[in-house]
Amino acid sequence: MDHSWSPRDKAIARRTYDEALANAKKEMFTLFKEQSIASADDLWDLEEWIRERRKEISSIFIYSYSKLELVFCISIRRGWLKLESLEGLSPPIFESIKRIVSQ
Amino acid sequence: MDHSWSPRDKAIARRTYDEALANAKKEMFTLFKEQSIASADDLWDLEEWIRERRKEISSIFIYSYSKLELVFCISIRRGWLKLESLEGLSPPIFESIKRIVSQ
Repeated sequence: MDHSWSPRDKAIARRTYDEALANAKKEMFTLFKEQSIASADDLWDLEEWIRERRKEISSIFIYSYSKLELVFCISIRRGWLKLESLEGLSPPIFESIKRIVSQ
Repeated sequence: MDHSWSPRDKAIARRTYDEALANAKKEMFTLFKEQSIASADDLWDLEEWIRERRKEISSIFIYSYSKLELVFCISIRRGWLKLESLEGLSPPIFESIKRIVSQ
């Protein structure tokens, strides 16, 4: 995962990264809405749940070119991004991601 | 606040402590329900809010006879307990609490 990123790659990466992050947050919010919170005691569990989701999202979404392929692979596996959204990336990068998510 | 607690004092203390804690939690839950949570980003603020409330409640509600008078004074000031709920406590304890909350 040590490819060089052209200006075009960088533009596609920025857009798809934002899309994946927005979808990860949307999924989290949907899961939040599905929770039954009926008393203050449920709020202690909710606090823990939000903390874990927040830590998970911030551990995945790191905008660094050395980590972006991994971010995209995880996002595709988690359903936050479609591989097709990455079409247009330089072939070495696109094929590397495609190979990993197909494994 | 170094009074001795009779069995009767202890029974009243247990009941009123539980009442105050339940009211503190109810108040917190009411405040939670009033919040507008419209997206995942609001959840980060919510996590922080719950953490602060949780830390506040656990710093106040310590069931130790050396601290109970303070717990009751704070609870009365915060509206979680009425002074009348403590009637029946030994006069030195009751008067000590009454004096502090009247200041």
